[in-house]
Order: sequence, then structure tokens, then C-alpha cells
Amino acid sequence: MTRTDQKRTFKLTPYPEALKKLLETFNKGPRDCEVVPLEDSMDRVLAEDVIADMEIPQTDIAMVDGYAVKSKDVAEASITHPVMLNVVGKLYPWSKPSDAKIEDGQAIYVTCGAPIPNKADAVIMVENTILHDDKIEIRKPVRKGENIARSGEDIKRGTLVLKKGAILRPQDVGILAGLGIRKVKVFRRPKVAVIATGNELIELSREDPTRIVDNYALTISGLISKIGGEPVRLGIAPDDLEGTKKKICEALRKADIVVTIGGCSMGERDFVPDAVNSIGDPGVLVHGIKVKPGKVTGFGMIKGKPVVMLPGLFASTMAGFYLILVPLIGLYMGVEKEPLLPTVTAKMNHNLDPDEKNRYRFLPVRVKHLEGGLYAETVSGGPNSLSKFLNSNGFILVPPKKGLRKNEKVKVTLFSKEEFSRFYD
Amino acid sequence: MTRTDQKRTFKLTPYPEALKKLLETFNKGPRDCEVVPLEDSMDRVLAEDVIADMEIPQTDIAMVDGYAVKSKDVAEASITHPVMLNVVGKLYPWSKPSDAKIEDGQAIYVTCGAPIPNKADAVIMVENTILHDDKIEIRKPVRKGENIARSGEDIKRGTLVLKKGAILRPQDVGILAGLGIRKVKVFRRPKVAVIATGNELIELSREDPTRIVDNYALTISGLISKIGGEPVRLGIAPDDLEGTKKKICEALRKADIVVTIGGCSMGERDFVPDAVNSIGDPGVLVHGIKVKPGKVTGFGMIKGKPVVMLPGLFASTMAGFYLILVPLIGLYMGVEKEPLLPTVTAKMNHNLDPDEKNRYRFLPVRVKHLEGGLYAETVSGGPNSLSKFLNSNGFILVPPKKGLRKNEKVKVTLFSKEEFSRFYD
Repeated sequence: MTRTDQKRTFKLTPYPEALKKLLETFNKGPRDCEVVPLEDSMDRVLAEDVIADMEIPQTDIAMVDGYAVKSKDVAEASITHPVMLNVVGKLYPWSKPSDAKIEDGQAIYVTCGAPIPNKADAVIMVENTILHDDKIEIRKPVRKGENIARSGEDIKRGTLVLKKGAILRPQDVGILAGLGIRKVKVFRRPKVAVIATGNELIELSREDPTRIVDNYALTISGLISKIGGEPVRLGIAPDDLEGTKKKICEALRKADIVVTIGGCSMGERDFVPDAVNSIGDPGVLVHGIKVKPGKVTGFGMIKGKPVVMLPGLFASTMAGFYLILVPLIGLYMGVEKEPLLPTVTAKMNHNLDPDEKNRYRFLPVRVKHLEGGLYAETVSGGPNSLSKFLNSNGFILVPPKKGLRKNEKVKVTLFSKEEFSRFYD
Repeated sequence: MTRTDQKRTFKLTPYPEALKKLLETFNKGPRDCEVVPLEDSMDRVLAEDVIADMEIPQTDIAMVDGYAVKSKDVAEASITHPVMLNVVGKLYPWSKPSDAKIEDGQAIYVTCGAPIPNKADAVIMVENTILHDDKIEIRKPVRKGENIARSGEDIKRGTLVLKKGAILRPQDVGILAGLGIRKVKVFRRPKVAVIATGNELIELSREDPTRIVDNYALTISGLISKIGGEPVRLGIAPDDLEGTKKKICEALRKADIVVTIGGCSMGERDFVPDAVNSIGDPGVLVHGIKVKPGKVTGFGMIKGKPVVMLPGLFASTMAGFYLILVPLIGLYMGVEKEPLLPTVTAKMNHNLDPDEKNRYRFLPVRVKHLEGGLYAETVSGGPNSLSKFLNSNGFILVPPKKGLRKNEKVKVTLFSKEEFSRFYD
């Protein structure tokens, strides 16, 4: 028997150092932009500031259905001394402002959103008028400017509306449309190829090979799309070096970032690091990070593209995903200010003993809303526990040798923006 | 001139009463289910409880790469008195558990995830062994059960894994896959037809008709998809009764819920209520709600399907959307427990005067994370303000005649799950 069981050892890199190396290595990578029709821009990241180039409203407009009047004409109106005005026209939102004007004693019917005719300075609501053929009777005064929205009152030309790096919400898209904007420059969504490797998958459906599903890849792909990347699922790599290399080469052709799941531990069937090293320089840059779980996480570079190696046990896969892949995708998305994942401050619901070893700990927690605010509690389960992730909605990253006291405040990073809904279960 | 300017009046319904009527009317509507492949189930709502029908792990498995041993064989192992064991085989995650057993003095190489051979009761890590041809040297003992995950340790057969009504997250999907589940029964995503009406749209791009975009429909459609509905955009209804009726009929054929934007006020071109009443019984059920803004919001029923009439000024459209349409979509989605929109508790950053009128107030607020937690402040702007929604991330609903004191706690409903990212701007 050859020593195939122990062919590889690796030097563990402290997590902050690994992260720094990742971000520095890929910081100069392309942050491609594209121009998309506004209708397709939801959830995309703005690649430039957006400045209003029109006023909102564009002209003075009526805020209600009613009559545009000169306020001085009705200043003395009362029930005992109603004022009668001649109605000399109608204006609609699509009428041109220059189409109409009023003289003393006149009024023009305006629908909500219609331009205010020249010389009118107030709009009296339909409900407060009585119509007599082509005259209206008005029984109370109206203030100058009442029921009129002034040109530029809401947004002035030249206003910085949205900053570069903003993730466009539905309401932002509607507002940009309202500003006459039809296309926006956004960062291209990074394509992330996801390759599963064999070992841990087969284990899950040993009895029936037709039932094999790359379930970790399914989860990781879903989480990638939640944060704004475009997952490209490439299925399961065969359990040999050549097959693994071929899959990674395919991934490099099809995507901006390559992610492998499993196959990067010290076992004799862990072909991923060798594959990465043999395809192109510089190959593996970091393999082994001082973090628990997720120790065998690594990353490398081939043809300028990052290859992230995630471990194959679920808790480790998740740790590698959040600690290495998410920051990398953020870099490629051009998101500087807005976090991809929400964080909340919660109080620990129990003590957490310090770790004896010099490593960060990635601990899934369940955040719950109790009397007195948000509380976080760690969720038990080994590195291959699935249930741990059923019962948690975020994680804390605990520095080496640090413990936490009950009621101590911690920053919890939620697994995705969706997780808030489970605070109140 | 005929009294076309004032053809309609409506009785205002208190908001709680309108909501109750909405939910009661449509509570018995179909909550259709469908079975979808697990891979397409992300973000869908479970239509039945999911019970584990296998153990996770399925058998006792190795948690590390190493050697399965009898712990008693190495109980006395030390540097000065190492124990030598004969390696009699290898097991992989895909090996059958019955394939192997060990006798006293023997060990079997197991990779992470491999089944534990019969009679072995611990796994010693590869790193803690020295290989000599077909023997391993062991210099320290291993505890009984060490590095072994027991069958069912993580999830037992019969465990309630996810409840009916749960919205499936990426990690849930992966976990269900791990449980051998390949299809899930989910509620059908309600199709929501969105019809914009002309007036308020044309206003926005008066000078160039080619630039007309139904920007409110764009926003409302985006928000519908954020909460899990399937928007069907039907464009802009012509500004006449027949055209409006035709659009609504098209919408009734294509969708489960029909939403109109604009055209439901008191102006002479507000054709939507008449259209709803003339297509089928019972037609309009509620038109006019005691809420500011959003007063002219209404809803009706045609052929058993709901038609929601949203006002045409942006703040009113949004009020009607959140107060009427979101609860209705929730009903159709089958979401009972999980909120479609997250809520947070924040402190008011300023006083808010009581309203003199007997109506609820829908107030967009900006929630920000400051020293001392989350603070909410109302955002100024009239009913057609766009900027108000650039600068806010949720709303508060203030009951009639109620004011709020600075530092008073309020429940803020966020516009969508995305909004958390803007707490920290």
C-alpha cells in the first residue's frame, strides 16, 4: 500500500491574511459594465452616478381634480357671498402648459397632473365647487399656491439621484423612468461556475445512483443568485484528475469565477488542488485557512480568473462560501458601499467558551426576536450537519481564542436578505 | 358644459373594515398547488409539511479521512509505546456499510463520509498515524465514537423538517435534496396582471410621447415579484371606458388578480370603477378608504377574481399596494406564518403631530442605524413625490388621530426584503 492516504499537507493561512490576498489579487480584475434597458435593471448595480436632467414635476401641475383660479378672485368667497367664475377651458395631464391662460373672473378645469394655466395661482377642489352651466360657484377662499405642485419641487435638475454602486430597487427603477431615463449603465453580473465533486454527493444517495443530486451545488448556486451573481451549474466532476481538470477548463471558458465544492481535502481522491495547479499559472495561491469549519478552503488563479475551492462538508462549504466567495463576488459586482448581506446586532443568548486554537470560528446562529430585542444563539451540529442550517439564519465570526458572554452584543451576518422573515417564527 | 367633472362620489370605508372585507371575500378563492422539481423550488411556498423519510447521516460515517479502529486496541498507545495495526481495506463514501469489518488489531482506511466498518468504534485522523507498508503506527489513543457521525444524529426519520407555508431558501432546497427529496408540492405563484391607465403617465413625458413609460407599473410589477407573485404587465389602458373594459377582460383571462393603476379618482376620465362595474357582478365592492394617501384605492370582484384599483399618484399607488394588494397576494400565495415583508422596531427620530381627521396615515420613513439602534424618520413630499421613495425604505401606518413622540417605538414595515442594505448608508 502506497502512502496515498497522506499525499498532501498544507500551511494554514490566517483568515484576515487570506482575505487580503484574495481582494488584492483580484482587485484589478475587470469590472465590466453594460448598458441595459431600464426595465431589465432591477437588482443590478449602478456603474455610474445618476443625475436628474429634468425637473420633477416638469411644470407647475394640479395636485387634485379641480379648477385653476386666481386666488385673489375668490379671496372674499363665503357661503353668504359666493363667487361665480366663468369656466373657459379644460386642461389634462397631456395638455401643453402654454395652451391656456385665465383672466380675472375666469377658471379652467384641471385634472390631477394637468399643467396650471398662465396667471392661475391656485386650484380649488372639484368637491368645493358647484357647477352652473359654464360657471362655477365658489363658497370659500383658496390660498395662493394651494393644490399646486411647483416645477422642480420634488426633484431639481442636477440632483444626484442615485449613486454608483447602488443596487436598483423596484421603486428606484420607477423613479428613473419618471426622470425620463430609459437605459442605465450597470456592472455586468459576474458569472460564477459551480462544480461539484463526487465524494460527498454519492454518500447521500448510496442506494440509488439515479437519485444523486448535487445538493450543495444547488444551495450554493441559489445563494449566488440571491447576492446578485449569475450561477452557471456545471454538474458533478468525475472522481479523477483528468475529469476534474476538464471540468475546470470548461468553467474557465464559461464564467468569470470558478467554484468547486469538495475534493480539496487531504484524501487520496481530492483532485481539485492538483487540477488547479496543473492547468495554468499561478494555480493555487492559498490552500488551508485558519478557520473552523472550512479549514481546507482555498483559492487560486488561472488565466487571471479566480478559482475558489470550497470544502465538501456542508458546514465547511457554507463557511468557505461566506468567508471567501461572497467578498470575491462583491468585488466583481462593483458593490462598494452596499453590503451584499445584511448584518444585525444581536445579544448572545448564552455564553460561548473561548476556542483553544488560534483560528477564527464560523458559527451559524439563530437570530430571534424576543422581549428586549434580537438574540443570537449558536446551533449545534457537526461539520456535515444539514439541520444546523435549517435552524439558523446567519453566522457570527469569532476571532481566535475569543469567547462570548451571555448578553454580549455580536454582529450577525445573515445568510441572505430573506432571513429576516424567520426572526419572528 | 355638463357636470362631467363631478360624476362620482364615494363613501369612505375605514381601513380595517376594508381589509377585513378583502380577506373574507377572497379567503375561499383557490389556493392552487403544483408539484415542482426541487431545483425550481427556491422562493416557492411549501403547500405541505415535509417530514424526513430517511436518517441523516444514513449510516454511521467517518467525519475525517483516517482509519476506522477499535478504540480499545489503541487505548494504551503513546509515543513510547506506539500501537501497530494491520490495514485490511479501504472504504469510500460510496462503499456499502456491509462490505467490511475489522477484527482485533486491524484498521480500515476510511475517507470522510465513508461508512464505518462493522466492529470499529472510532476513527483516528490520517495526520495522527504513520504508515509502514500495510501497517499503521498509532501514538495516541482515540475515544470511543471519536470522528464518527452516528446514523440519524443530524436528522431522524420522521422529523418535521419544514412546515407548510415556509418560503424555501437556497439552503432549505439543498437540505431537502440531501433528504432524497426530488419534488415538492408548493402553492402556485399567483399571476397578477398590472394595467396602467393613461393620465398620470403622459404627464411625465409630455413633450415626447415616445418616451412614455408606465413607470408606476414597472415599480409595482417589480415589487410584486419581490414578494413572490408573478407580474403580468399589460401596458397602458386607453383613456376611454371601452378600452379600459377590454384591458380588464384581457387581464381576467390571463391572471389570478387584476391590478389597475390610476383612473379611479373622481375626474371625468377615471373609467376604471365604471369598467369594473360593467364587466360582471358584483363589480366594485369597496371604493374609497379612510387612509392618507391612497384614499381612492378600491377593489372589486369579477368572475370570482379580485380587481384592485390603485390610485395614480405615486405615494397613493404605493399606499394602496402595501395596504391592499400585498395582503391579497399573501392570501393567494398561501403564506400564513411568514411575513412577505420584514418588519423592524425603530424609535421615532422626531415628534409626529396627530392627524385631525379620522383616517389612517401611510407614512414612508427612512430607517437608519444610529448609535442606540434603529431610528425612523418620516420623509417629506406630496402625493406625487418620487423623491420620497428614493429616500425611504419602509412605512409606518399611524392610526386615526394618533401622534407619535420622539423616541417612541414604532413598527416599520420595509418595502421589501432588500431594504436592509440601506440601513447603513
